[in-house]
Amino acid sequence: METLSENKCFGGMQGVYRHASDVCKCDMTFGLFLPAEAEDGPVPVLWYLWGLTCTHENAMVKAGAQQWAAEQGIALVFPDTSPRGEGVADHEMYNLGQGAGFYVNATEAPWAAHYRMWDYVAEELPRVIVNNFAVDEERQAITGHSMGGHGALTIAMAYPGRFASVSAFAPITHPSQSDWAKKPIHAYLGEGNVDWTRHDACLSLRANGFNGPMLIDQGTGDQFIDSLMPEALAAAITETRHPAIFRMQGGYDHSYFFVSTFMEDHVAFHAEALYG
Amino acid sequence: METLSENKCFGGMQGVYRHASDVCKCDMTFGLFLPAEAEDGPVPVLWYLWGLTCTHENAMVKAGAQQWAAEQGIALVFPDTSPRGEGVADHEMYNLGQGAGFYVNATEAPWAAHYRMWDYVAEELPRVIVNNFAVDEERQAITGHSMGGHGALTIAMAYPGRFASVSAFAPITHPSQSDWAKKPIHAYLGEGNVDWTRHDACLSLRANGFNGPMLIDQGTGDQFIDSLMPEALAAAITETRHPAIFRMQGGYDHSYFFVSTFMEDHVAFHAEALYG
Repeated sequence: METLSENKCFGGMQGVYRHASDVCKCDMTFGLFLPAEAEDGPVPVLWYLWGLTCTHENAMVKAGAQQWAAEQGIALVFPDTSPRGEGVADHEMYNLGQGAGFYVNATEAPWAAHYRMWDYVAEELPRVIVNNFAVDEERQAITGHSMGGHGALTIAMAYPGRFASVSAFAPITHPSQSDWAKKPIHAYLGEGNVDWTRHDACLSLRANGFNGPMLIDQGTGDQFIDSLMPEALAAAITETRHPAIFRMQGGYDHSYFFVSTFMEDHVAFHAEALYG
Repeated sequence: METLSENKCFGGMQGVYRHASDVCKCDMTFGLFLPAEAEDGPVPVLWYLWGLTCTHENAMVKAGAQQWAAEQGIALVFPDTSPRGEGVADHEMYNLGQGAGFYVNATEAPWAAHYRMWDYVAEELPRVIVNNFAVDEERQAITGHSMGGHGALTIAMAYPGRFASVSAFAPITHPSQSDWAKKPIHAYLGEGNVDWTRHDACLSLRANGFNGPMLIDQGTGDQFIDSLMPEALAAAITETRHPAIFRMQGGYDHSYFFVSTFMEDHVAFHAEALYG
């Protein structure tokens, strides 16, 4: 593993690291924030999955999460959103290919060779983090924005007991019913082959539940709101009587300005679950 | 108007008053908490509408609201939930008759003579309060529990601009589709005569909207949850893209223990809107 940068940040360290991924069969880069408390032993960790077009860097730079994580003594992991590099397939659409891994293990050509972001985020990267840094694998939580909210919700529900809590900012909630997300997932997995109970947060919640608290923020002024389908997740939460906080935030759009506004609340929400 | 009791409470005064109601054509009793700030001039007011079987007294005694209202300098009004007295019709069912006014103006026998709780709470009592106490009619907010949540939501939406904010604890959200609430409302208004756009919070939100923030708390362990239909209100909020906080509170039931647990949050929520 190669250290690309390390910068002191809110009393802790913001690092960027590159490693050869067995799962994605390419080099992968991730960001990791460790609070000062990590010098004394393993700390809880909050996974941050990001959205279309983003790299490991966007959330690390724009979301303002480190200040709140430092306050709570929590590490933050910022994975990339897709495999990268010259030999990795891509597409001219921004919602397919590099920057748009959708947190699935592709089975279809030309994607199957590298696009295994489910296994990367849920299996390989956790081992890399726990083996190399002072992070406590018994105290994990997960969040994400947009496509990353989809990833956070679906992965959280697929690994019962791993995550103490889950949250999302403007998540893609119901990709089986939303062309914007359904088309790329069809491209990766093959139309008709998708296990939507695994890859659709609404269906997964109805089928699997989630054994912990959930926090969702959605801006009412979000330009993608019709494709995100917050109403479908609200229905799944309320119809299954699942404990959750669902907030429709008046006037906010899909941007990092929205995300950073409510970041403090999300970090505090996860801290309560991680230390509870 | 007659003063039944006045007790100093959190630096302010908890009073109980009785007056002859022109609208209900009987004596009506209400509770009013005034914070210490009311000695210096009119203060903002939060209306508290209560649920089936309750009088003006239940919320006043069990909800623990005065401490938070005192902290925020806000008055609280606790109206009764129906007309009362010997000449007032009643029924053996707990969800019809005395203690179960449902915040409508009855048109059917034997209810029409006294059961005009919509006009009482939305028209007559506000004038009584503003004319007799240091309460600022330009700064009002409204909340309620169960049947009172239904009242708070429907009245708030029917008077655009009057209430800065609305909240509810385990509200009856969609009485047009819930027998528990539909049957008594049919008894009061006549089946086929109900203006459900006025008396169903989900339909009113879709038709009228509400020009302010909204906070809903619902316990997942609520014994009446299937009749309350939180999923219908969550759908109305998310499908209309209305700013709101909707919380499914894990394990809480329908009782005052649930209400009092989240009272601080509700009073703080209204204070932010009233002073904003």
